Amino acid sequence: MRIVLDAMGGDHAPGEILKGAVDAVTTFWPNLKILAVGNAQLLEETARQLSLDLRNIEIINATQVIDMCDEPAKAIRQKKDSSMVVALRILAEGKADAMVSAGSTGALHVGTSLLVRTVPGVKRPALATVIPGKSPFLLLDCGANVECRPAMLEAFGVMGSVYMQQVMGIQSPRVALVNNGAEESKGTPTYVQAHQLLKANPHLNFVGNLEPRDIPEGLADVVVADGFTGNVILKLTEGLARYFGGKLKGLFTQGLLGNLAYLLVKRGVSDFKKGMDADEYGGAPFLGAARPVIKAHGSAKARAIHQAIGQAIRCVEQDLCGMMAEQLSRQEEEA
Amino acid sequence: MRIVLDAMGGDHAPGEILKGAVDAVTTFWPNLKILAVGNAQLLEETARQLSLDLRNIEIINATQVIDMCDEPAKAIRQKKDSSMVVALRILAEGKADAMVSAGSTGALHVGTSLLVRTVPGVKRPALATVIPGKSPFLLLDCGANVECRPAMLEAFGVMGSVYMQQVMGIQSPRVALVNNGAEESKGTPTYVQAHQLLKANPHLNFVGNLEPRDIPEGLADVVVADGFTGNVILKLTEGLARYFGGKLKGLFTQGLLGNLAYLLVKRGVSDFKKGMDADEYGGAPFLGAARPVIKAHGSAKARAIHQAIGQAIRCVEQDLCGMMAEQLSRQEEEA
Repeated sequence: MRIVLDAMGGDHAPGEILKGAVDAVTTFWPNLKILAVGNAQLLEETARQLSLDLRNIEIINATQVIDMCDEPAKAIRQKKDSSMVVALRILAEGKADAMVSAGSTGALHVGTSLLVRTVPGVKRPALATVIPGKSPFLLLDCGANVECRPAMLEAFGVMGSVYMQQVMGIQSPRVALVNNGAEESKGTPTYVQAHQLLKANPHLNFVGNLEPRDIPEGLADVVVADGFTGNVILKLTEGLARYFGGKLKGLFTQGLLGNLAYLLVKRGVSDFKKGMDADEYGGAPFLGAARPVIKAHGSAKARAIHQAIGQAIRCVEQDLCGMMAEQLSRQEEEA
Repeated sequence: MRIVLDAMGGDHAPGEILKGAVDAVTTFWPNLKILAVGNAQLLEETARQLSLDLRNIEIINATQVIDMCDEPAKAIRQKKDSSMVVALRILAEGKADAMVSAGSTGALHVGTSLLVRTVPGVKRPALATVIPGKSPFLLLDCGANVECRPAMLEAFGVMGSVYMQQVMGIQSPRVALVNNGAEESKGTPTYVQAHQLLKANPHLNFVGNLEPRDIPEGLADVVVADGFTGNVILKLTEGLARYFGGKLKGLFTQGLLGNLAYLLVKRGVSDFKKGMDADEYGGAPFLGAARPVIKAHGSAKARAIHQAIGQAIRCVEQDLCGMMAEQLSRQEEEA
């Protein structure tokens, strides 16, 4: 198994990225080889400083880096020797089985579409994210496709379902469509039609519309929305978690009594934080890509990179992309 | 000033509704007259039981009640002698200056559109709600118009701005458009065009796109979205507030230490709850209606009804509907 890693992407690159790679190699020894792409001199120097053992890690030189402020499409086209583009090429050429990057989400999406391509029937991959709540669920699309036809929403349901089954081990994942009411007639014409397509698909465990106020309640394993709405759900959840977290902190920093109260419920607060920590659930897969591409969080440290590599391995072992292509072609034949 | 009140709508009707009316009459004595519509016998009996003084409150008999489970359009058409429909008629005929109801949101919306009608240029009123956060803001549309053209989103900006200025006393309200990125080019074609219209409107203080994660940060006074997206924002905020509230409660109910911790930060928790309590900000106005209609929360008690009546009075005093019609016609002339 060969995983190609963008060693220069993310806030803590390259040190934490390399550390995560070394941890993953140790975990999966001797079956995992990692191709770490980046400034070779810097990577080797970093490994020396951190006393990292680079066995089963091959360093591949790339002279450029795509920054968070680079315009995605332009960066992919112009920074041809960037760690991300070189890694995407290695994946596209079949020299690796899957890819992990903590770099720019936009650039990784464009690069995946252009270089790695998609499975038949998918125009652009969907960005899927596991969101914490009463039980964690996969939300897609989180922003890659802002306008969606009904058949795309159905495809999101299929792709999310295959992912949760194959990679997360959930039997018969419950698939729901975000909508502003439980009734079939609710929502825009696109959502009304998508509801019918999802309902009629015999390979899905479709549980119907999911009202936004019930999203945190853990009523579905896969939550389907167009990229505009999905982005609102993902980012508003992050924003409100931050807002409520700040309020919670405020409770415990009001003088001596607050500090004392904090000591008394410290473990509960830490569990709460852990429950809201996206790193617990690895990275975000680009579903519909021809080969597995996992986007780790920009703030990912070694542990999150280790998790994302494990996730990429499961995608390969379970032939995620092949299963997805099969399910989607079946959907097209039946339509 | 005459306010017509649906005395049978809401979970705590008619007792709490009548109490709120009596409180409002006391506050605005002698300038307020309230027309309380509902089962006259029940209302009089309730007033007796609660020892309420009905001076300046006229009871108008209506034999039917619209339930939360009634289909909105059907209920408005068929329950012609319901408290809501009778109240809407009184408003439409100019026998009252504004209306308050804690009944079904859907029915009140349909009834307002059909009976009270809209100001020129508005097809269906938008449901606007004040949402708590670092600083409270007005979100519209919260679900009345799931599909919106760019000009409708511009009109929401104008209506929200007039409301915040006239009724909430905010000078030059900051208007923002929800979008999945700060750049003008972000979002669906509808949002790209709406951005340009809002930006070009000389009567608006348009501050640009607002990313969903920044929604709780208090960066705008008026937040514009189509009804589908607005509904997601409103309901997801409610759902997450409930979810986080439950987690917070969980912290303080874990044994003796949790209980002790609660005692130490009790006031902070109560402030937190108060900050998330929509009742603090009165009811939700249907903006674009030809006369002011305020939807109080279904769970509204006397205090919230009192607040909503005060809000209705400010709408009338500030000639909200006239100002809105003027601003919208100006927008049309200039287009």
